[in-house]
Amino acid sequence: MPTLSPAARLYSQARRNLLPRHERLVAVAGRWQHEYLAHLGIRPEVTLRCGEVAHDAALDISERALARVHPGLSAPALLSVVRLPEWRPAQVLRPDSRLVLVADGIEYAGNLGTLIRTADAAGADGLVLTNATCRLTHPKVFEASRGTVLTLPVLTYDSVARARRDLTAAGFTTYVADPAAAVDYLAVDYGPGKAAIVVGSEGSGVAAEWRTPDLTRVSIPMRGRADSLNVAASASVLLFDARARMR
Amino acid sequence: MPTLSPAARLYSQARRNLLPRHERLVAVAGRWQHEYLAHLGIRPEVTLRCGEVAHDAALDISERALARVHPGLSAPALLSVVRLPEWRPAQVLRPDSRLVLVADGIEYAGNLGTLIRTADAAGADGLVLTNATCRLTHPKVFEASRGTVLTLPVLTYDSVARARRDLTAAGFTTYVADPAAAVDYLAVDYGPGKAAIVVGSEGSGVAAEWRTPDLTRVSIPMRGRADSLNVAASASVLLFDARARMR
Repeated sequence: MPTLSPAARLYSQARRNLLPRHERLVAVAGRWQHEYLAHLGIRPEVTLRCGEVAHDAALDISERALARVHPGLSAPALLSVVRLPEWRPAQVLRPDSRLVLVADGIEYAGNLGTLIRTADAAGADGLVLTNATCRLTHPKVFEASRGTVLTLPVLTYDSVARARRDLTAAGFTTYVADPAAAVDYLAVDYGPGKAAIVVGSEGSGVAAEWRTPDLTRVSIPMRGRADSLNVAASASVLLFDARARMR
Repeated sequence: MPTLSPAARLYSQARRNLLPRHERLVAVAGRWQHEYLAHLGIRPEVTLRCGEVAHDAALDISERALARVHPGLSAPALLSVVRLPEWRPAQVLRPDSRLVLVADGIEYAGNLGTLIRTADAAGADGLVLTNATCRLTHPKVFEASRGTVLTLPVLTYDSVARARRDLTAAGFTTYVADPAAAVDYLAVDYGPGKAAIVVGSEGSGVAAEWRTPDLTRVSIPMRGRADSLNVAASASVLLFDARARMR
C-alpha cells in the first residue's frame, strides 16, 4: 500500500479525532461545507480534491487515497482540514455581551453541534463548555452546527469553579435548567441584565457544582407524559425566550 | 441454524422495520423502556427474555437467538413487540384541542422521535404527519421520543389537502414555519384560538401545498450566521412560545 501524502494523512487523522486537542483541527468534507468556508473567507490548512471539482488550491488525491482517508465518500470530493479559532474569555464575556449558553457534561457530538447552531441562531454571544466529554473538533460537531462552530465563540473550561468565576466577574446572572426546579422559566425577569443559561448532560443533568443555592434554578414545565426534554430542545426554548424578553 | 420461534421472529422483523405499516408494531428493548411500558400499563404483543430478568410473562430465548434478533445486545436482556395505538382525527382534533404540531416531510426517525417528545412536553394535543418518509414504528422513533410515541396522538395523512381540511373543519388556525417569512413568530397573536404549527423537512422545508397565501407564514429570526434552525429546535421554540402566550 503506497504511503499517504502528509496532507492526506493529516485529513485522515483529523477525521478520526486522532490529533492533539490543542491543535483544534477539524476535517470538513462536502459541497455546502466548502461553500460555507469560502463565504466566511476561511483558508483551510489543507484542501484535497478527488476528481473534477473546481478549487484553486486543492491537492489532487487518487480514488484509492480517498477511500482510505474518508471511507464511504466517492469522487468528485473536496476535503479540507480547518483550524477552529481560539477564544479568550475576555473576547466572549465582554462588557456588551448579554446572553451565553453554558453546556455541562455534553456527551454526544451531534448534540454539541446542535447546541452551537441553536446558540448562534438565538444571538447568544458564546457557548461555555464544562465537563464536556465530546470534542469540539469531532466532524459531527461541524455538521450538526452547520459550520457555526467556526464562528460562534466557544470557551472550554476544565473547571466549573473557574467558569463560574469568569461569568460572575463579567456581570452575568446564571440560570440553571433543572426539571425539578420550582421556578418556571417564564417567571424569570431577565430585565436589562446579562444572562448565562446552563443546560446539562443528556443522562444526568447539570453537575452538582452548578446546583448551588446561590444560583437560580429554572424548570420548563412538562405538560405531557415525558419527564424531560432533550438538551437541545431545552436550550432552544430557554435561549429564545430569554432573548425575546430581555430588555 | 435452528429456526427462531414465531415470537422471536416477530421481534426481529419489527426491529428491522419489515412488518406491514398498518400493523403498527414496534420493537422495544431495554430497562427504562420496559419500566415505562409497565408504568403506562401497556401489555406488549410478546416479550422475550435472555438471562436473569424479572418479568412475569416473558418467553425465554437463548443467547444465540438474542444475537440473531438484536445484534449487539447481550444478556440480561428484555425485548418486546408493542402495538402503537391507532388514532382517528375526531379523537385528536377535538372541540377542546388547542395546539397541534404538524410535521411535513420528516426524513429521519430520530428527528421524528424528538418532535414527538417535544410536542408531548409542550402539552400539544397531537402530531399530524404529512409527506413523512420515515416510519412511526422505527425503533429510533421510540427511543428519541422516550416512549411518548405510545401516548401522544399521531395522525398520519397521505394527503396534505385532507390534513388541511380536517384542521380547518376542527377550527384550527394554521401557522407555517418558513425562514423566509416576513412575520416574526413573536408577532403572532394566538389569542383564545386553536393553533396548528407546521414545521418542514430537514432538507427543503415545508411542502408547497402548505405554503399557500391563505395560511400565515411565520419565521424565527436568525440572529447569527446560520440561516436556519434544525426542525426539532424550531418546533420547540414555536410550540413553547405558543403555549405560553395562548389565552
